[in-house]
Amino acid sequence: MLTADDIMEIHQVLNRYHHLVDNHDWNALGQIFSEDAVYDLSYRGHEPVEGLDAIASLMARSLETEFNTQTGQHGTNIFVFEDSDGTVRSEAKTLTILADGRALSADYHDILTRTESGWRICRRTPSSRDPSAASWTKLSPSS
Amino acid sequence: MLTADDIMEIHQVLNRYHHLVDNHDWNALGQIFSEDAVYDLSYRGHEPVEGLDAIASLMARSLETEFNTQTGQHGTNIFVFEDSDGTVRSEAKTLTILADGRALSADYHDILTRTESGWRICRRTPSSRDPSAASWTKLSPSS
Amino acid sequence: MLTADDIMEIHQVLNRYHHLVDNHDWNALGQIFSEDAVYDLSYRGHEPVEGLDAIASLMARSLETEFNTQTGQHGTNIFVFEDSDGTVRSEAKTLTILADGRALSADYHDILTRTESGWRICRRTPSSRDPSAASWTKLSPSS
Repeated sequence: MLTADDIMEIHQVLNRYHHLVDNHDWNALGQIFSEDAVYDLSYRGHEPVEGLDAIASLMARSLETEFNTQTGQHGTNIFVFEDSDGTVRSEAKTLTILADGRALSADYHDILTRTESGWRICRRTPSSRDPSAASWTKLSPSS
Repeated sequence: MLTADDIMEIHQVLNRYHHLVDNHDWNALGQIFSEDAVYDLSYRGHEPVEGLDAIASLMARSLETEFNTQTGQHGTNIFVFEDSDGTVRSEAKTLTILADGRALSADYHDILTRTESGWRICRRTPSSRDPSAASWTKLSPSS
Repeated sequence: MLTADDIMEIHQVLNRYHHLVDNHDWNALGQIFSEDAVYDLSYRGHEPVEGLDAIASLMARSLETEFNTQTGQHGTNIFVFEDSDGTVRSEAKTLTILADGRALSADYHDILTRTESGWRICRRTPSSRDPSAASWTKLSPSS
């Protein structure tokens, strides 16, 4: 049973995520994701990646290529809930701001897990209703 | 007297709202609004509508007409407070993102009520400082 | 030791801030900042200002000059933490929306203090990764 304290802790984790990305603070990704977390960008034609190193690598490449004009990534609309089988999920939204002032809207569908260090994302699956999202430059497959 | 738990529950309701709108999940509107809730878009020349069906209808039409290029609606800045007469209010903000990357800023002035199912919005009155807001295509009056 | 209730109260303060700014509600700034708070816009070439009157003056001028087309300022990504020496900090983000739909991304690095009236910001230091931020019209030095 989720308490308000759990939800606040999950807010802290999800809100902190964008600070880490914007600061390229890959060493701190373990504060956000579990060790074996999966980041599933299949909506943009990628194979899901697993583990903190692979997630850091995917994000670093993304910021060097298709999002190289990104000035900030913002998170909004955290809604945390529990499935009948006890799976803890969050639906949230994100805005990627580009240097020309454009905002790109996407959604994060997360599964959370309670670790010894606190709540962590164990699976993130973004999606977007932006018609241009499908044609954003594809990242090369992670090696 | 509002507790931090009440405020977190209200965050959950207000944050969830935009997910429902973006997913056209009108059947779930009762998780957000009370049965007799009033949605007052009078700042754009509409009569206020009352009840879940009328609110769903207003939103569905809005997404088909003036906001038909909307890629996401994001909520921010939830501030919950209690009037001296016990009325619970929230001031919040929203960003509507269009397919060309433009962001439209508006405010939500809400009154909340505690129902048997939890906190719900019983009156929402949006406003905007966007000079173009007044000229956004008017919706036809709800029937 | 910060509790979830403390963090929620800090959310309330930080989220309320943008409502005050957008409403030019300078008389309420004492609900956000401590009496001797410092607002440090040195990233844009300004001397830090101290005290509620000086902060109100800086903001009012900013909205009359460089941000005179601002339609709303939105806050996101509040992450509250405590240093080993007990200093309470928040990392947060802000989006300034202009009348043409552009969004400008910036970060707020805050120090919080617990006063008799509740949590207040005692030092705010904004920064931005927006390449145009450095060339935004400089405000004249506060007198």
